[in-house]
Amino acid sequence: MITLTVELGHRSYPIHIGRDLIARAELFAPHLDGPQVLLVSDANVGPRYLPAIAPAFAGRSVEQLTLPAGEQSKSLSVLDSVVDALLEARFSRDCAVVALGGGVVGDIAGLAAACYQRGVRYIQVPTTLLAQVDSSVGGKTAVNHRLGKNMIGAFHQPACVVADTATLDTLSDRELRAGAAEVIKYGLLGDVEFFAWLETNVDGLLRREGAALAHAIERSCRNKARVVAGDEREVGRRALLNLGHTFAHAIEAGVGYGHWLHGEAVAAGLCLAADLSTRLGWLARDEAERVDDLVARAGLPTRVPASIGTARMLDLMALDKKVRAGRTRLVLLRGIGDAVLTDDFDPDALRSTLDERRARA
Amino acid sequence: MITLTVELGHRSYPIHIGRDLIARAELFAPHLDGPQVLLVSDANVGPRYLPAIAPAFAGRSVEQLTLPAGEQSKSLSVLDSVVDALLEARFSRDCAVVALGGGVVGDIAGLAAACYQRGVRYIQVPTTLLAQVDSSVGGKTAVNHRLGKNMIGAFHQPACVVADTATLDTLSDRELRAGAAEVIKYGLLGDVEFFAWLETNVDGLLRREGAALAHAIERSCRNKARVVAGDEREVGRRALLNLGHTFAHAIEAGVGYGHWLHGEAVAAGLCLAADLSTRLGWLARDEAERVDDLVARAGLPTRVPASIGTARMLDLMALDKKVRAGRTRLVLLRGIGDAVLTDDFDPDALRSTLDERRARA
Repeated sequence: MITLTVELGHRSYPIHIGRDLIARAELFAPHLDGPQVLLVSDANVGPRYLPAIAPAFAGRSVEQLTLPAGEQSKSLSVLDSVVDALLEARFSRDCAVVALGGGVVGDIAGLAAACYQRGVRYIQVPTTLLAQVDSSVGGKTAVNHRLGKNMIGAFHQPACVVADTATLDTLSDRELRAGAAEVIKYGLLGDVEFFAWLETNVDGLLRREGAALAHAIERSCRNKARVVAGDEREVGRRALLNLGHTFAHAIEAGVGYGHWLHGEAVAAGLCLAADLSTRLGWLARDEAERVDDLVARAGLPTRVPASIGTARMLDLMALDKKVRAGRTRLVLLRGIGDAVLTDDFDPDALRSTLDERRARA
Repeated sequence: MITLTVELGHRSYPIHIGRDLIARAELFAPHLDGPQVLLVSDANVGPRYLPAIAPAFAGRSVEQLTLPAGEQSKSLSVLDSVVDALLEARFSRDCAVVALGGGVVGDIAGLAAACYQRGVRYIQVPTTLLAQVDSSVGGKTAVNHRLGKNMIGAFHQPACVVADTATLDTLSDRELRAGAAEVIKYGLLGDVEFFAWLETNVDGLLRREGAALAHAIERSCRNKARVVAGDEREVGRRALLNLGHTFAHAIEAGVGYGHWLHGEAVAAGLCLAADLSTRLGWLARDEAERVDDLVARAGLPTRVPASIGTARMLDLMALDKKVRAGRTRLVLLRGIGDAVLTDDFDPDALRSTLDERRARA
């Protein structure tokens, strides 16, 4: 097991990464205040891992809530159902919410913890690659709105993150690939050495080789922890973690939540950001090709789906949380490992990217 | 106009108190980041004061949302409707939400601002005495759940508070009295001199004499600002501001939200806290009588409604946010102006208070 720390003063917390961690009570105990624990999982993860995690909370007052699997659970009505469970069990402010699952479970359970009685503790136990490398760290919680993804949420840091790589053994190949998109993102936005490592090791990663998985998770979490520590509430550099995400959120909303996995949309978003950066003369063509190649080797999409026209993409992108004073801001690339947030780009170049990087119908 | 400051480091903000303030653009401008402003009010306040406040935001992109009046608006579905309004108008993270109304409008608009895109600015323009002396200051936002009041919420500080005493001219007598309950609370919990002033001046306050109103609002806000500055997220002394509120929330839930005004329930809660403190030998009998007398002179209830039995009150009180490790904690009195938070009381004494301080059916 290795342990990283997200340095946030009195809100600092550890990320434990390793195999067979979820039953280890000593990892959780320091972060529990009272005896009440709500375990939130989903219909895929719950049956598989709720029995496995039980010893970690032996002797406590444990309640379980299993949500429908999938992005549709990120809604206010599901949030209400989590609060129902907490109140029906008479959970007090010293309780803890444990999110056992992927990004959806983490986002909804985290927001419930942020809002319940104006804030209780929560612990992230991510069971997908995407959640282990990205969404479980940093305290972003949210549900979706019909007009935009993650539009209702909070910054609420977990008390700890326990990333058990053994839980990835049962992950579908599709989910594993979706997680690889966020891994590639970390190389691309600020860690050129990691990007090069991925070019060499992506096949091993997708074959779930232990050393490759462990390195990818640790390196991604190190990158994320450093950025979050410097800018907890995204007033500056943290926005760079959104590389590819303005395109991705528009794609997810455009095809309807749940049709594309978030990581799949991020993968296409990375390629679009690279393409636009090249059109602007900021990124060498061969570097953009390296992005495309790596994403394609990970078995991920590199284009906007055929069903979403350019006007619709632009419309959906205008709802992005990075918009300021009516201007869309994008994270673009000055090179591999060198991302910048900017609104200083030619809108015609963006239109060309959206026109030309659309999949054939 | 006088201006107080809630000292919270980089989240510090001013409270402006005086007559005819709501149209003064210069009070609002320093706290607006972008051009987009959503004015949230309710069916009572909106028609009366939306035209009056318009000059304050001249030249900006203003949207208006008018909620149904009353406690029923503190729900997740109304929260969703506020987010609808923000997204339909394509408001970005640099927008501001302005709460124009009483405590209900402030709580729901504040929570919407806390959650929208994980947090945007909001400004409180309280138009009831209760909101001016209490709920608009301190950053507590929330909606209710069928099982408990204010159970879904956030700590999210406003960017400024503009308390225009002219808006109290149109307040109903019942709402004015309800606000007086929170004013009395501030004397009782930590300001014996203010309590004595109220014993002399409560009649003038209820006649809306300008000097009495101004003094009561300023003194209450000074007390609240000091406590909030010392304990923003209620890990310690801020809980004392809940004097009477554990009883009050149980009464409000017990009679059904909207039947008793919050301030009416707080008034009864103050008398119950004093009664229990006397039974415990902590508060002199004549001091408890002074509490009863002042509350009664303000035209406010001093007892639990006849419809709520002791078992039901205890049950509802067990859902309080101050419960820790299964024990109800109450704010009780060691004297007028000397409140303490404690779970160290005889449960039989609490039962006696609830039995004997019930109104006759």
